[in-house]
Amino acid sequence: MADLYKRLDKDNAAVLLVDHQTGLISGLVRDYGVDEFKNNVIALARTAKFFNLPVILTTSFEHGPNGPLMQELIDLFPDAPIISRPGQINAWDNEDFVAAVEATGRKQLIIAGVVTDVCVAFPTLSAINEGYDVFVVADASGTGSKQVANAALMRMAHGGAQLMNWFSVAAELQRDWRHDVEGFGALISAQLPGYQNVMGSYAGAQKDATQK
Amino acid sequence: MADLYKRLDKDNAAVLLVDHQTGLISGLVRDYGVDEFKNNVIALARTAKFFNLPVILTTSFEHGPNGPLMQELIDLFPDAPIISRPGQINAWDNEDFVAAVEATGRKQLIIAGVVTDVCVAFPTLSAINEGYDVFVVADASGTGSKQVANAALMRMAHGGAQLMNWFSVAAELQRDWRHDVEGFGALISAQLPGYQNVMGSYAGAQKDATQK
Amino acid sequence: MADLYKRLDKDNAAVLLVDHQTGLISGLVRDYGVDEFKNNVIALARTAKFFNLPVILTTSFEHGPNGPLMQELIDLFPDAPIISRPGQINAWDNEDFVAAVEATGRKQLIIAGVVTDVCVAFPTLSAINEGYDVFVVADASGTGSKQVANAALMRMAHGGAQLMNWFSVAAELQRDWRHDVEGFGALISAQLPGYQNVMGSYAGAQKDATQK
Amino acid sequence: MADLYKRLDKDNAAVLLVDHQTGLISGLVRDYGVDEFKNNVIALARTAKFFNLPVILTTSFEHGPNGPLMQELIDLFPDAPIISRPGQINAWDNEDFVAAVEATGRKQLIIAGVVTDVCVAFPTLSAINEGYDVFVVADASGTGSKQVANAALMRMAHGGAQLMNWFSVAAELQRDWRHDVEGFGALISAQLPGYQNVMGSYAGAQKDATQK
Amino acid sequence: MADLYKRLDKDNAAVLLVDHQTGLISGLVRDYGVDEFKNNVIALARTAKFFNLPVILTTSFEHGPNGPLMQELIDLFPDAPIISRPGQINAWDNEDFVAAVEATGRKQLIIAGVVTDVCVAFPTLSAINEGYDVFVVADASGTGSKQVANAALMRMAHGGAQLMNWFSVAAELQRDWRHDVEGFGALISAQLPGYQNVMGSYAGAQKDATQK
Amino acid sequence: MADLYKRLDKDNAAVLLVDHQTGLISGLVRDYGVDEFKNNVIALARTAKFFNLPVILTTSFEHGPNGPLMQELIDLFPDAPIISRPGQINAWDNEDFVAAVEATGRKQLIIAGVVTDVCVAFPTLSAINEGYDVFVVADASGTGSKQVANAALMRMAHGGAQLMNWFSVAAELQRDWRHDVEGFGALISAQLPGYQNVMGSYAGAQKDATQK
Amino acid sequence: MADLYKRLDKDNAAVLLVDHQTGLISGLVRDYGVDEFKNNVIALARTAKFFNLPVILTTSFEHGPNGPLMQELIDLFPDAPIISRPGQINAWDNEDFVAAVEATGRKQLIIAGVVTDVCVAFPTLSAINEGYDVFVVADASGTGSKQVANAALMRMAHGGAQLMNWFSVAAELQRDWRHDVEGFGALISAQLPGYQNVMGSYAGAQKDATQK
Amino acid sequence: MADLYKRLDKDNAAVLLVDHQTGLISGLVRDYGVDEFKNNVIALARTAKFFNLPVILTTSFEHGPNGPLMQELIDLFPDAPIISRPGQINAWDNEDFVAAVEATGRKQLIIAGVVTDVCVAFPTLSAINEGYDVFVVADASGTGSKQVANAALMRMAHGGAQLMNWFSVAAELQRDWRHDVEGFGALISAQLPGYQNVMGSYAGAQKDATQK
Repeated sequence: MADLYKRLDKDNAAVLLVDHQTGLISGLVRDYGVDEFKNNVIALARTAKFFNLPVILTTSFEHGPNGPLMQELIDLFPDAPIISRPGQINAWDNEDFVAAVEATGRKQLIIAGVVTDVCVAFPTLSAINEGYDVFVVADASGTGSKQVANAALMRMAHGGAQLMNWFSVAAELQRDWRHDVEGFGALISAQLPGYQNVMGSYAGAQKDATQK
Repeated sequence: MADLYKRLDKDNAAVLLVDHQTGLISGLVRDYGVDEFKNNVIALARTAKFFNLPVILTTSFEHGPNGPLMQELIDLFPDAPIISRPGQINAWDNEDFVAAVEATGRKQLIIAGVVTDVCVAFPTLSAINEGYDVFVVADASGTGSKQVANAALMRMAHGGAQLMNWFSVAAELQRDWRHDVEGFGALISAQLPGYQNVMGSYAGAQKDATQK
Repeated sequence: MADLYKRLDKDNAAVLLVDHQTGLISGLVRDYGVDEFKNNVIALARTAKFFNLPVILTTSFEHGPNGPLMQELIDLFPDAPIISRPGQINAWDNEDFVAAVEATGRKQLIIAGVVTDVCVAFPTLSAINEGYDVFVVADASGTGSKQVANAALMRMAHGGAQLMNWFSVAAELQRDWRHDVEGFGALISAQLPGYQNVMGSYAGAQKDATQK
Repeated sequence: MADLYKRLDKDNAAVLLVDHQTGLISGLVRDYGVDEFKNNVIALARTAKFFNLPVILTTSFEHGPNGPLMQELIDLFPDAPIISRPGQINAWDNEDFVAAVEATGRKQLIIAGVVTDVCVAFPTLSAINEGYDVFVVADASGTGSKQVANAALMRMAHGGAQLMNWFSVAAELQRDWRHDVEGFGALISAQLPGYQNVMGSYAGAQKDATQK
Repeated sequence: MADLYKRLDKDNAAVLLVDHQTGLISGLVRDYGVDEFKNNVIALARTAKFFNLPVILTTSFEHGPNGPLMQELIDLFPDAPIISRPGQINAWDNEDFVAAVEATGRKQLIIAGVVTDVCVAFPTLSAINEGYDVFVVADASGTGSKQVANAALMRMAHGGAQLMNWFSVAAELQRDWRHDVEGFGALISAQLPGYQNVMGSYAGAQKDATQK
Repeated sequence: MADLYKRLDKDNAAVLLVDHQTGLISGLVRDYGVDEFKNNVIALARTAKFFNLPVILTTSFEHGPNGPLMQELIDLFPDAPIISRPGQINAWDNEDFVAAVEATGRKQLIIAGVVTDVCVAFPTLSAINEGYDVFVVADASGTGSKQVANAALMRMAHGGAQLMNWFSVAAELQRDWRHDVEGFGALISAQLPGYQNVMGSYAGAQKDATQK
Repeated sequence: MADLYKRLDKDNAAVLLVDHQTGLISGLVRDYGVDEFKNNVIALARTAKFFNLPVILTTSFEHGPNGPLMQELIDLFPDAPIISRPGQINAWDNEDFVAAVEATGRKQLIIAGVVTDVCVAFPTLSAINEGYDVFVVADASGTGSKQVANAALMRMAHGGAQLMNWFSVAAELQRDWRHDVEGFGALISAQLPGYQNVMGSYAGAQKDATQK
Repeated sequence: MADLYKRLDKDNAAVLLVDHQTGLISGLVRDYGVDEFKNNVIALARTAKFFNLPVILTTSFEHGPNGPLMQELIDLFPDAPIISRPGQINAWDNEDFVAAVEATGRKQLIIAGVVTDVCVAFPTLSAINEGYDVFVVADASGTGSKQVANAALMRMAHGGAQLMNWFSVAAELQRDWRHDVEGFGALISAQLPGYQNVMGSYAGAQKDATQK
């Protein structure tokens, strides 16, 4: 039976972080809260790091108002290629970028970026066109309004993309907690304050029980 | 003519309740109000009970921060299998879970869980892949934001899932009020305060009429 | 070339108004404001009247908490069949209802009802299954939350339904203002207060101009 | 003991409807839905009519883009003074308007208008300044955003105005249903579709009871 | 020093539940979700029960579309006076109601009702006028929109009312958990699903710890 | 390999602006803020101008309440055909309009208009039916509510349209900043106040650096 | 009788624009849409210009991330004092700023700025403390969330400030359209797209009438 | 002249952090996003640290479902008193807590906590009653809904509290950037991702300028 479920495989996936630049974020992202968005982007990056996925960073006109990459991304991936595109808006139009993707040997591409309708949608549709399976990380991608984001997500879904979020990406890559319970727990706890709280409560309750 | 309408059949459906655990709900569910979400989950459970559908409960790491299953679910289904997964995130990766599903002999799977984008989306896509018809109960499934939920629902809809809610599940299973008018009315009234109000008004009005 | 555009034709369309009953509306509809919803339902009904479309009314358990049909619908269509279903939730399961549909000889069905995920979704999918083209009037259909409505609309869209609203139904049937400028203008003005305002302003401005 | 409760008295109240003009409404009102706003304004007007309160209509530059008064208001109050202000933005700056208010002999002024922050706020503060008790009908007054409306309501509340809505105005004037049960019920039912529904259900239930 | 803090005292408080009738709720309450609102009203009622506060129930035209009281309230307070007002909209205009209030000997009145702007606001302002301290329970009171609720709350706050919610009422009455830890915990857990979840997690964690 | 990605090409695209008339906008558009909507429409128009795309303007009953075209559109495109439709609601039913489209020789149609569900949806589906690739500009199209807009977008997406927004249209046409950095930057800055701010900050920072 | 109504007087008012800097706006303002906020700030500035009010501009650390003033403000007021504060957060702590205010001889201060809770709230409370009447322009002031804005507005209202918006400021200064009908109309039309639309419709309707 | 402006003074202020416990936050806080809320609480704590303000931590039943304090707070203030209240809900009812407050010698109290309507509102009103000036930090305090939060804020504002947010607290304490430009900038940048972005852009732009 054909395998219809496009499922992330940590040995076959690469992560493309497109234009998470300070100017673009502060100027253009309004569909997520500022704290939430920063958290989501870093969560996706740490997920990539945790699974040792190949990561490709790319920027558009970073020496201009679009601004430099978020410093946290540079710090997290000191060895990742950073494709500084001289002008191409669709990263897939940049030969170096495509070469970097091909160099990973991976056929599953996890994409997030700013703005969703341009920097994410264009390479997503181009990559699908080239035969890749593309997984769009909706909540690590931002744009000017929820309405614009929604239209872009519909365009990509109808074009064949899998719509994900950073946590579902992490979970689909992890597959089984036992592959590294503590590591995965630490990743999640650090990026999900809601989960951090239940971990804190659990530890407190256990301490209470054993100290009684 | 081919039957294009995926329609629930109470003799062919089973219910999978995935990871409705206290820690996951309090830590991660933010797309529904707390009262509304609890009500929806219990409504779905009581619907399963009312139709005597096979129910499979499963948990992820319940002896940890994720916490125990909602006690109401345990109480409602004392004889249901509870698959305590030792690590698999996608319940479908757990052989016991799949065996329990197969043991029901049902080909229509009604799924709800926490969180929508992981614990629901993954087994939904896996089960469709295996040839099951899957009915996702959107309002008995929760996650971190409406945006994440929406992306996950779009992913599942494009993957072939039927998007439902607990009330449409109940109604599609019931098909005809006459199969048990009082039982079905009691089910709905108990879980839909809005309907309970119109029932109260109706009874009051009738009493007024006959006492005049 | 095949005609891919499902387009309403006033000579081939019928209107099915399903369970717009007072108890169901007051108890269960929360995705539209009360003024807006009433206005939309009546607007759709008057649209049907304006185009002399065959209309079928149906109710579910009207002698009970679900309550009677909105009186305005009864008054608008004194000659329409009212199928009082003795128990079937999906109107399409009621033979009289299907017979009434077939009696119209129409192959395009415009459906609205309460609640969207049940009373609209079920007959919509059944009718598509039987080869009809179905046009769902989203804003004359109501349910418990925007999230439930959205899931139901996605289910129907993926099942082949055309998603409409009362005004697009009216416009697609009318096709050309010249078929009855004054009648169509009166219809729209009466149901769209926003349009009524611009008509009032226009008339005022013309009067100003000619009285100077 | 001093009477601290500013309470409407139908023998001491007058209604001021300020600038409910078609152009102003369509161009500037965005804090209420169009159906809801029209309904609220007419509801307030019918309330005034029901209690035979003196009503004063006023317009600002009606022979221009602001447009004519809503026709329904003109029709409801054929004998009311219509003060067509030649330029004064604050109606209280117009001597004829103040004279009309004084001519009513009333000391309680119920005000609604478009836009809330100007056409309502200015005469409200002026009238309080002159010793009147002012009752602002928030939901029959509209402006460009909820934020602007909220700031204006806070300004007026701190300035001494009573913040009301059309239904609380009607109820405070009526005081006792027995003064005219049927009339008051008809008023409410006609303007509150939610109440109309429960009335329909009540009548249906009684009919069911007596016909059994 | 004068005591400026209006603070609830369980020996000096009484609870007034005004017009929580099935027809009014289903027809008119739209500022809270249906599950949330029902939960809040019952939570306030159980709070009153827990503290053995005198409770007065009152209805407006219950033998009509307004409908009977929520059955849960009748069941919870079998001995409470139910003042069935023959017509007075402001409960304070009903002598029996005021007599019932006076008979409690309490000077702090906790009020909730349907609708906020009428059935709550009017007796609140009347009671303050008579020298009572009034505590309005905002989330156990409902009305047609958040905008109307907000205007009514502002009117009452400027009129001297203390704005509360059912949980702050419970907490201000309890003052110290030690007065009845288990009872108070049970009350809160039963009405706050969010708290029920953390209690479930705590118990689970303790069990885990002691069973290791 | 087939080219699956429908991608805008400035040498093959034309822009259709349908019924952006003053009366329709003020009377019917409520899914975008007034400032935002005006800005989006003009942004799309300037984008068309920047790329020298053929533009076709069309109006419905402009000599009536629908009102004249936005003056800015007339001023921007003095040489564009303005098809004043005598009655056809679907612009594609007007022979002159179709002829104007055909005269451009373009096969990619970028459409925006008022209202989304009618003036955009109808010609979009007609044009797809005729073999055109259609790109709907969601945020330069408006209608009565977000719910209606969403249903219309889903209808069009399922019918084969590409869902875009003005900025993604501009970016997909531009493809590479180097084609005209200053021109494209000026276009974006003028229409995206958020981007204008980061440009201002960039210039300020550079001036600071060089003046030290 | 004392004059209780704090009313703007164009001969006694000055405008203080505090820290409308590009970095602060793009980094911190999230309670208004970007188009709407820019429009509101410029609208207030043009209002000041129209009435020839003294205007004082001030910045906080403009040679740093806070960025330069919006260029439009500099261009509009070439002769206004720009107080570049070397460090004081509350502009009122800067002697030059206070001196500039005193030099105007005005006792009514119209204030707007970024962010509302700091740059507006602090000088507002300081100025009231010094005996000025302060008029806060809520919609030309921005901050991080609606909740923060609301808390700040409540603080200022309780501290004695008048809460306004740019349009109510313009209207209260203008008082009578006849002081300059065309000028005032042009001001409003340029900044209120909703009003521009009704003006366009009016002109169109008049042209239609006279050309018939 | 009396000083009417309640203004924070770093030599006279103390910070009270009330019940920021893991169980309470995950179970009960729903009026802020989880990322945003955690960020705000830590931001307030770091502000207190930065200004060396006396800090008092207190918990309610931490050895139970309410859970332990957020670990970050314990880590930030190793020397602060932690008043573990044995039962008192209002921290002011605990003698040790009041003694700790008095021991600071400060008369300005900055309060935040969970939940707003109880753990913040009660000690706020008690402290005002005792003659303290109280500054409520709205966005570092959480509760079950925006409606409940709003009612509680109104209660406190009418009771004499100053409504603030963490950033306005920091700014009012700092007064002048020059007191420690780098330290204050670092504090703000770490907690305001929006500001961090503009700082990143500024640094990038300066580097660009000097490297050219």
